[in-house]
Amino acid sequence: MLKRYLLAPGPTPVPPEVLLSMAMPIIHHRAPDFLPVLESAKTGLQWLFQTKNDVLIIASTGTGGMVGSVNNFFNPGDKVIVVNGGKFGERWTKIAQSYGLKVEEIPVEWGYSVKPEAVDAILKKDPEIKGVFVQATETSTGVYHDVEGLGKVVKKFDNTLFIVDAISALVAQDMKTDAWGIDVMIGGSQKGLMLPPGLAFVSVSEKAWQRNESSKMPRFYFNFKKERENLAKNQTNFTSAVTLIIGLNEAIKMLQKEGLENVFKRHARLARATREAVKAMGLALYSKESPSNSVTAIEAPAGIDGQAIYKNLREKYGITGAGGQDKAKGKIFRLAHLGYADIFDVITGIAALEMVLKELGYDIKLGTGVAKAQEILMQ
Amino acid sequence: MLKRYLLAPGPTPVPPEVLLSMAMPIIHHRAPDFLPVLESAKTGLQWLFQTKNDVLIIASTGTGGMVGSVNNFFNPGDKVIVVNGGKFGERWTKIAQSYGLKVEEIPVEWGYSVKPEAVDAILKKDPEIKGVFVQATETSTGVYHDVEGLGKVVKKFDNTLFIVDAISALVAQDMKTDAWGIDVMIGGSQKGLMLPPGLAFVSVSEKAWQRNESSKMPRFYFNFKKERENLAKNQTNFTSAVTLIIGLNEAIKMLQKEGLENVFKRHARLARATREAVKAMGLALYSKESPSNSVTAIEAPAGIDGQAIYKNLREKYGITGAGGQDKAKGKIFRLAHLGYADIFDVITGIAALEMVLKELGYDIKLGTGVAKAQEILMQ
Repeated sequence: MLKRYLLAPGPTPVPPEVLLSMAMPIIHHRAPDFLPVLESAKTGLQWLFQTKNDVLIIASTGTGGMVGSVNNFFNPGDKVIVVNGGKFGERWTKIAQSYGLKVEEIPVEWGYSVKPEAVDAILKKDPEIKGVFVQATETSTGVYHDVEGLGKVVKKFDNTLFIVDAISALVAQDMKTDAWGIDVMIGGSQKGLMLPPGLAFVSVSEKAWQRNESSKMPRFYFNFKKERENLAKNQTNFTSAVTLIIGLNEAIKMLQKEGLENVFKRHARLARATREAVKAMGLALYSKESPSNSVTAIEAPAGIDGQAIYKNLREKYGITGAGGQDKAKGKIFRLAHLGYADIFDVITGIAALEMVLKELGYDIKLGTGVAKAQEILMQ
Repeated sequence: MLKRYLLAPGPTPVPPEVLLSMAMPIIHHRAPDFLPVLESAKTGLQWLFQTKNDVLIIASTGTGGMVGSVNNFFNPGDKVIVVNGGKFGERWTKIAQSYGLKVEEIPVEWGYSVKPEAVDAILKKDPEIKGVFVQATETSTGVYHDVEGLGKVVKKFDNTLFIVDAISALVAQDMKTDAWGIDVMIGGSQKGLMLPPGLAFVSVSEKAWQRNESSKMPRFYFNFKKERENLAKNQTNFTSAVTLIIGLNEAIKMLQKEGLENVFKRHARLARATREAVKAMGLALYSKESPSNSVTAIEAPAGIDGQAIYKNLREKYGITGAGGQDKAKGKIFRLAHLGYADIFDVITGIAALEMVLKELGYDIKLGTGVAKAQEILMQ
């Protein structure tokens, strides 16, 4: 018997309460029984997004929400800035280019976070730039970008929308949509929200809705205006992913019981314990700046393949973390502490990591990392 | 206590086996554990679609599959035929027009099915037409279109793709993708496949893949070529809707145990029993030709509002059927016999209908419809 532990930055474990709620017989998405379900999801998401904006609920992965955020607010030829500091920054560029936008990338070295001044400088030179795209947490590098700082910059430019992929940040980071001036923010179900994959969430500001009026790109499935009209009636434009939305309400209920501040504190504490534990083990963080509270990216020690660490964790100890992506492949591995995660998920991950590293020939005294994590988690 | 019965043409009831399978802890979509899950879903769908073609699995509603079928095989300005005999025919037109296609509609009176000769005549006049779009079952009218006959017509035209929305037909109707020359066929999870909403399935022929090479529309989320490349590795392009795919395997296992021929016979029998029962009650079918095996559309008797029948079924007896859509609203109501449906679903629906109609002032001897259904279902 190999007991399984999921410590990946999405999908993340789904709590039994949520699994159970989704095992209830299905209800029809246009029947009156469903209206309060969607109403509750809608207001729950506004609470989580810290916004008065509409938060659309779409049956797709988070990437669908990203595509819709390009497709609903721009026209071919529009100039936009993409902060590219990893694989998901690259994805913004690819999506924007697919739809004919002219992308000016701000390249950020993997493992580092963007300087808001860099965005400010470009916007000042060219106030025609129609949007700034960024990740809150760049999952591939474990870096959290300074969304608050970027928001202050973009807010000064009337023609520019601020669009944030918060898919893996949401729940783990304090994301103040309204206070920070985020025009469009995207979330996904299978990350901090502790649900299976299949839902995207998108908050849209009034500034973005106004821009939507002049956006003439072809769109049908990701038609945010239609979603907004339906949302006002507690419906979705096409068939609602009923089961996932029922699970969403259950997950939000759990988060509300814990309280938003406590949720953020928990994630911050688990993340810090993970970071300090791996440092105590003599390992280096891959995130040189602003490490995220969702996932910790760790450099493989000299002479040891990051993919071997990832594979041994999974095959020998049943722990699914994540390896490195693209140019970080082999160089790093990642452990998440996101969503339905507590003290003993961290302890488990660190203990297994010690054993795997020792087996791979790394010189370590067993228990070193665990002790450091315990110390922090007891505070 | 009001016990609930779901007799709508989607979402449909999800069997307990499937619900239970989806309540298992989540697995990571890029981990080796998931590869056999997707492999099994892939071959299971080929069995169900009766095809050797790739059947793509996409995290969206069925409409997403329809959008992708326009978006991946055409260019703006391409001329296409849409068979429009109801609300979902209209949807083909809207999607195609959203992407700049020039649509020639073949209008079909609601309640009737298209004549393949009508398509043949237009294609002969204009062999530049790049595609023919149709529903297998037009859910809004309860009509099944002659897909086999249409396939024979379209097959003669080398430049023309045959694209079939089989979302509500699949499982209830014998859909021979390869034998009938269907280039692109779309299915959805929440219909005959007895799953929650959230997955679209799309089979793509070699002829369609060749056309895909010259299609230059912007696309990112519904990028079928990328899905195909991923499918070859038992993956999906973006995060797989893991839970629904696990449920899909369970549902396919149930259908395979029953056998495809028996599945079709069951649906045909339940549909016939429903039709004969309502006729025995003195009601008229809304489908004047080729009634589908998925859903029966029934005309409300003179002086009785179709929406009142639908509402009373639900509110008084806990039975969620469907009303009429758009111009059929108030004139009809619908009862489905789709997916996880058996004899006593039909009996329940018909018995409740008798009681509701009597309460609404319709002159009927209780048990008339039920007796007719029993008679047919005992054969």
